[in-house]
Amino acid sequence: MSTDKTNQSWGGRFSEPVDAFVARFTASVTFDQRLYRHDIMGSIAHATMLAKVGVLTDAERDTIVDGLNTIQAEIEAGNFEWRVDLEDVHMNIEARLTDRIGITGKKLHTGRSRNDQVATDIRLWLRDEIDLILSEITRLQQGLLGQAEREAETIMPGFTHLQTAQPVTFGHHMLAWFEMLSRDYERLVDCRKRLNRMPLGSAALAGTTYPIDRELTCKLLGFDVVGGNSLDGVSDRDFAIEFCSAASIAMMHLSRFSEELVLWTSAQFQFIDLPDRFCTGSSIMPQKKNPDVPELVRGKSGRVFGALMGLLTLMKGQPLAYNKDNQEDKEPLFDAADTLRDSLRAFADMIPAIKPRHAIMREAALRGFSTATDLADYLVRRGLPFRDCHEIVGHAVKYGVETGKDLAEMSLEELRQFSNQIEQDVFAVLTLEGSVNARNHIGGTAPEQVRAAVVRGQELLAGR
Amino acid sequence: MSTDKTNQSWGGRFSEPVDAFVARFTASVTFDQRLYRHDIMGSIAHATMLAKVGVLTDAERDTIVDGLNTIQAEIEAGNFEWRVDLEDVHMNIEARLTDRIGITGKKLHTGRSRNDQVATDIRLWLRDEIDLILSEITRLQQGLLGQAEREAETIMPGFTHLQTAQPVTFGHHMLAWFEMLSRDYERLVDCRKRLNRMPLGSAALAGTTYPIDRELTCKLLGFDVVGGNSLDGVSDRDFAIEFCSAASIAMMHLSRFSEELVLWTSAQFQFIDLPDRFCTGSSIMPQKKNPDVPELVRGKSGRVFGALMGLLTLMKGQPLAYNKDNQEDKEPLFDAADTLRDSLRAFADMIPAIKPRHAIMREAALRGFSTATDLADYLVRRGLPFRDCHEIVGHAVKYGVETGKDLAEMSLEELRQFSNQIEQDVFAVLTLEGSVNARNHIGGTAPEQVRAAVVRGQELLAGR
Amino acid sequence: MSTDKTNQSWGGRFSEPVDAFVARFTASVTFDQRLYRHDIMGSIAHATMLAKVGVLTDAERDTIVDGLNTIQAEIEAGNFEWRVDLEDVHMNIEARLTDRIGITGKKLHTGRSRNDQVATDIRLWLRDEIDLILSEITRLQQGLLGQAEREAETIMPGFTHLQTAQPVTFGHHMLAWFEMLSRDYERLVDCRKRLNRMPLGSAALAGTTYPIDRELTCKLLGFDVVGGNSLDGVSDRDFAIEFCSAASIAMMHLSRFSEELVLWTSAQFQFIDLPDRFCTGSSIMPQKKNPDVPELVRGKSGRVFGALMGLLTLMKGQPLAYNKDNQEDKEPLFDAADTLRDSLRAFADMIPAIKPRHAIMREAALRGFSTATDLADYLVRRGLPFRDCHEIVGHAVKYGVETGKDLAEMSLEELRQFSNQIEQDVFAVLTLEGSVNARNHIGGTAPEQVRAAVVRGQELLAGR
Amino acid sequence: MSTDKTNQSWGGRFSEPVDAFVARFTASVTFDQRLYRHDIMGSIAHATMLAKVGVLTDAERDTIVDGLNTIQAEIEAGNFEWRVDLEDVHMNIEARLTDRIGITGKKLHTGRSRNDQVATDIRLWLRDEIDLILSEITRLQQGLLGQAEREAETIMPGFTHLQTAQPVTFGHHMLAWFEMLSRDYERLVDCRKRLNRMPLGSAALAGTTYPIDRELTCKLLGFDVVGGNSLDGVSDRDFAIEFCSAASIAMMHLSRFSEELVLWTSAQFQFIDLPDRFCTGSSIMPQKKNPDVPELVRGKSGRVFGALMGLLTLMKGQPLAYNKDNQEDKEPLFDAADTLRDSLRAFADMIPAIKPRHAIMREAALRGFSTATDLADYLVRRGLPFRDCHEIVGHAVKYGVETGKDLAEMSLEELRQFSNQIEQDVFAVLTLEGSVNARNHIGGTAPEQVRAAVVRGQELLAGR
Repeated sequence: MSTDKTNQSWGGRFSEPVDAFVARFTASVTFDQRLYRHDIMGSIAHATMLAKVGVLTDAERDTIVDGLNTIQAEIEAGNFEWRVDLEDVHMNIEARLTDRIGITGKKLHTGRSRNDQVATDIRLWLRDEIDLILSEITRLQQGLLGQAEREAETIMPGFTHLQTAQPVTFGHHMLAWFEMLSRDYERLVDCRKRLNRMPLGSAALAGTTYPIDRELTCKLLGFDVVGGNSLDGVSDRDFAIEFCSAASIAMMHLSRFSEELVLWTSAQFQFIDLPDRFCTGSSIMPQKKNPDVPELVRGKSGRVFGALMGLLTLMKGQPLAYNKDNQEDKEPLFDAADTLRDSLRAFADMIPAIKPRHAIMREAALRGFSTATDLADYLVRRGLPFRDCHEIVGHAVKYGVETGKDLAEMSLEELRQFSNQIEQDVFAVLTLEGSVNARNHIGGTAPEQVRAAVVRGQELLAGR
Repeated sequence: MSTDKTNQSWGGRFSEPVDAFVARFTASVTFDQRLYRHDIMGSIAHATMLAKVGVLTDAERDTIVDGLNTIQAEIEAGNFEWRVDLEDVHMNIEARLTDRIGITGKKLHTGRSRNDQVATDIRLWLRDEIDLILSEITRLQQGLLGQAEREAETIMPGFTHLQTAQPVTFGHHMLAWFEMLSRDYERLVDCRKRLNRMPLGSAALAGTTYPIDRELTCKLLGFDVVGGNSLDGVSDRDFAIEFCSAASIAMMHLSRFSEELVLWTSAQFQFIDLPDRFCTGSSIMPQKKNPDVPELVRGKSGRVFGALMGLLTLMKGQPLAYNKDNQEDKEPLFDAADTLRDSLRAFADMIPAIKPRHAIMREAALRGFSTATDLADYLVRRGLPFRDCHEIVGHAVKYGVETGKDLAEMSLEELRQFSNQIEQDVFAVLTLEGSVNARNHIGGTAPEQVRAAVVRGQELLAGR
Repeated sequence: MSTDKTNQSWGGRFSEPVDAFVARFTASVTFDQRLYRHDIMGSIAHATMLAKVGVLTDAERDTIVDGLNTIQAEIEAGNFEWRVDLEDVHMNIEARLTDRIGITGKKLHTGRSRNDQVATDIRLWLRDEIDLILSEITRLQQGLLGQAEREAETIMPGFTHLQTAQPVTFGHHMLAWFEMLSRDYERLVDCRKRLNRMPLGSAALAGTTYPIDRELTCKLLGFDVVGGNSLDGVSDRDFAIEFCSAASIAMMHLSRFSEELVLWTSAQFQFIDLPDRFCTGSSIMPQKKNPDVPELVRGKSGRVFGALMGLLTLMKGQPLAYNKDNQEDKEPLFDAADTLRDSLRAFADMIPAIKPRHAIMREAALRGFSTATDLADYLVRRGLPFRDCHEIVGHAVKYGVETGKDLAEMSLEELRQFSNQIEQDVFAVLTLEGSVNARNHIGGTAPEQVRAAVVRGQELLAGR
Repeated sequence: MSTDKTNQSWGGRFSEPVDAFVARFTASVTFDQRLYRHDIMGSIAHATMLAKVGVLTDAERDTIVDGLNTIQAEIEAGNFEWRVDLEDVHMNIEARLTDRIGITGKKLHTGRSRNDQVATDIRLWLRDEIDLILSEITRLQQGLLGQAEREAETIMPGFTHLQTAQPVTFGHHMLAWFEMLSRDYERLVDCRKRLNRMPLGSAALAGTTYPIDRELTCKLLGFDVVGGNSLDGVSDRDFAIEFCSAASIAMMHLSRFSEELVLWTSAQFQFIDLPDRFCTGSSIMPQKKNPDVPELVRGKSGRVFGALMGLLTLMKGQPLAYNKDNQEDKEPLFDAADTLRDSLRAFADMIPAIKPRHAIMREAALRGFSTATDLADYLVRRGLPFRDCHEIVGHAVKYGVETGKDLAEMSLEELRQFSNQIEQDVFAVLTLEGSVNARNHIGGTAPEQVRAAVVRGQELLAGR
């Protein structure tokens, strides 16, 4: 990247050139070149509007638009030299435009500033990223619905405190993940709605003296509405923070899924098989098959939380309007978007391929007194207060721990030591199927409810 | 607070009592007692539903409801002894209920668990808090509209990089703050919408075997919809994180307002007067009048960011469903809500009382070449490309710095050194009024636009 | 807490009293009263010094010291009325002093400011807290050494990626925790060293015109050195951030221990027993015995990270010297110190009581091809390059997965399918004892090394 | 970067190749190639040790060392093809070694694992980075001492709450910054001390069965001591967190300096001149000269705080020993180190070049009743209690605000309205010089103290 020229956009007032290290330190083109497509899109809309209101002639507009399209092609062909001395993506493209089309290129910046230009670019960029992320969420959710449908009757132990709690169905568990992702989807849609307001026209901070038509650029760029205050327009980075917040929550969800996948593939759990293609091995231990993808995603939650914290810190205490600090908004935002999208993609590829091990999960559910609550509920139906039933079953469990028997393995006499309300029919409620089928209300773990939830989920995705 | 009894809700299975320090360490009643009102509200709805589906008789329901109402009165009268050995608000209230009404009290917990109970309580509590916060935002926004209306024509220097940039109106500046708060309001409304889903009925994690009617409790408690998955219902804390995120952004905004108020009350700026009642003095320097409220609010942004980070960390990597870790959700959430509400309240009280010092702000706007852009725009209208005009004015400013003259203070001849396109009419664009009035498009700083924005703002608030 | 009087220390310059809500909002006495003992300690040293340099008479000093001691007794007896209108702990105590001893009390504040006073108090307080925390770390480390010594030969599977990797000894695992805590100890000692510099004498920000003897107060208060710059003295909060950072790392360590304890007590692992007194049960599931203490500690890591983030945010961008923002330093610091100390205490109590289940851990180590690396190393000793051995063993493991046999369960012929370098003596290296004993270098898992490390650990603790 | 081959170091056990996206997603070579120099350094030491203990022949060692040196030259000449399919820097270098030297290359990995290899590399890398950072801190501190010496008598207003508080000297202010940096230096030295412990020899997690000589590699690599526990050795990332914590505090300090520089260069303060070479202009406002460097550094504090938070989150709750999550340690660490070093460099270049504007600072100090404390102290010396003096001066200030007179501008009669203890000699204490010279104790703002502190500072730097 070249730094040898000093053709800045603001040199007139200065007595000495910028220090070479300072030039590199303050330049953003190494990372903001990523915005080139949206920068050109914004410039084309701006030029179109300037021609409409008479600031440019139609011929000037056409020359500018052709020039910008050519530059975009140059960039995409890898034939564009990005120059650090030109500071940022905006000046690199504008300087190249003037090189190509001459003096008309210098008219493009009329009625705008880099302050509103970059605010526009980054919103356009993030809008596209959100759309890509939303489609990955949907793809992952489809995979979860597929698993839920296939495994609606597969029984596994449900955990609280990582202790065996009650039997649940694997399908039901997949749908818990589905719910989390639905909220992530909603949050990103809300964020997208709020970012889709146009700062262009705010100029440096106060608006411009040219007779701009902001409604026209708004329409050309697909924004929902024109931003209502120019000071706010150039200094607002809420959308970046809100995005990183939604991304952090989504990554937190993925970290929870990851934790479960790591547990489930351990030798102690063995609840699922992950295909080899989502795993890697060890350079020293030949037997290892490591669940790298979930581990890495779990680890990546940290960097997105860090991006969020970085952006909040960045904006804290800044007086209006634009300050150079704001240049630091891009890298964490880029990284958070990339991390979320790639993590979702990896999960969307992987989830349909995980294979539950039915027998092992069932065996695990049979241990750990997972139907103790069912026994308590049975006693409630015999007329005892819940709290008393809880205590009765507690004593039975203590006996079971001491004798190594689960509840369903005790004889009727053994059970009746704890309450003479227990009859032969108790054994129906102590089975795994009895337990899960009995939780048959909306949100419950019964296979019938899982299937109903899958249908609701399919409708939700279809409506997007 | 008493710790001497050991009447836990789960003792049956245990061989030894909980260690006394552990009991204190793991108890939550010292802070979750704050949820008592919402806990009782949830229990009344639950009992009503249980009676409707036949799990309780109507008489039992009435006894329970009366008992709970009496307990609420006891708590509010300060006559309730909170016991650490009973762990949390739920068991304290239930134990007291059983003390009062006997065995029927033990039936209340049928078909629910503390896992779904606390998830319900905290959502109900946060819903109320959000409503209080929304009303403080509106009150603060009203104050801003009042200032904007009164000061629509008051001219001050607008800053970028804290350097004088262009003249703006004080009313316009107030409306930038108004815009930020409008987004905060929206974010909280979106958060409220998403939290208003009912976890009650999820029971411990899998739903319950009782024939519960979740639609009924949903309606009784004012939730929008029944939660769709029980595992998610007891383990989801997204609403707390989303709230802290929205609160963090709002506090970040207040920190920016605060930074400006601190600057504006400094001896160097003197742009405004803060009434004495929002300031404090020094124990050693008799002359001091410190802008304590904005400083403190600026500082308080940190604790809300910290709460957000704490909650994200808390949830990271937790396997489903409920884990004890989740008990740590409350204190940061309580603190974030209190901090935001109090900070907004302080600002809502203070903003209408700030008094701009018109002459000083005007004088500041006259200095610093704040109309340089207007001169460049003037030259563009004479047909020069914007980039060239920028350079011409840059040279004029350099001359001004050297001679100590602002642009409007130079003679026509002096100005014509830099471009012979400059004529006598240039002086109209170099006035402050000329500058602000010329930025007369939506979002611009012209007084006419400020007044139009005030009208739009009043309509927005009226529509809430 | 009373708010009805308005007897502030700075009223002279003000025309109206502070707004009642603002008074509550800006007061710190609700939380900083916790510093009372260190505030009085600092005042006694200050008065002693003032008498030494002649600003107070000896009689005045004695009256002040007696008064302060009496006030401390009042506070500790619960007979002190803290008044919000007096803002903070400092003014509450000083006002009470003047009530008790009259006009002499008003002389105490000579040559100091609340700015240096609070900076002194909080350092003295934190120094004491660190000492308490250091002793809890040592107690916990003693417990770990005890476990390591008892379980030096106990074999368990070592994990990487939560996959069975190689056999390790339980004692070795305990010593990994010991190492982490040694670093925590060091970090806190370094933090203590850096905080033990005296800000008293900085006065408001510039020092004082009185002939103070800072070396004397430094000695009286046990500080190592007098702070070298008054502006820095009143604005520095590095020590609070550094403490929260060290506390965050320590809590991160405890969260890792906690994760392992939660895993190890699950039905799938069952590696250890936690005594009932460190667990709690479920209000709905009678069989549950939940590892509450480690779960809660794991969750509490978040609040300490949040405190750290809050304090960094707090200080970011503050101009010198003292700003009101700094009042927000105390609550996160108090909370971080309490959380760390209590978490360490709970672990120090619990660790000696955990009981490894030898047979289950041994059985787990036998599965999962944990000695595959040993087989590869065996082949290297036969002269093959490590990378080739790795591949040979990889094929053997694949065969084992398919046939359900661990390496030690294969016949010599089966093993020789993969390399004819394998001889009968291979079975010695495939045993668990062979594996762990072979890792017999400093830091290795061999029982001999564990015992040596325990001795080193005991010496380390003895030297504190 | 090539991804077309699949020559992993662990393929034997696997039935299908890694998914192409997963390969990219989990690879680290795009960023960890930065460690190449330290990776090679570690490998050379490892090979040297293996030869010493007889695992390699001397000839094999020489072949390996030569091969590694050649590869380092290839990398530094830009002739090395980094391959994503080889995952990381370690396998890229090892594969290239085997390409070059054949089967002997495969022997290098004997007795180590990538787990201890990467832990070693990153510590070696960070040790070098810390040394570079320490030298930038010293350079910046030298600049501050230079300013302090030159400006020991330059008077400016000292601020608390950004309100004029008391006069201070500019040199004294520079030394406050110096103190902060001294603590940063110490913290980094402490961090360096703690990171300089060698994990090499921990192998995968349990140590190795080869007769390695860890003391030898320790000495060859310049580590202070051999790590005491292999499980800890591969899983510990404390050093990265501790570094980011020290870096965060240092960046927080720089953000405070930045805030002051931004204020001081504003049109309202004008306390200093920043040379043009550290500033940039505006693309739209020709008059702008923006303090970009301090603004950017202020903004960059956020990314370092974010790195810290990301790393804490990363490690939270990870069971031992190595997990793939840990791969995420590098990017935040690299970014934090780069950011801190570059920010320090920019400041070290800039600070000696800032030019205080003496007249403007003096004028500002004369306003704002900055000598009010001096008047109170004067009255104390007349025998009044400090609190009463404070109130008397408060009334005088109130009179001054109303009449527009500073204290030194009032006549003796005016002053005596507030206390008849005031005599003609009062005017000596109301001068700026009188005020600063009077604060003549260690840490005080008197020029004499500033000069003494400069001498102490020079000695400190000389002793490094």
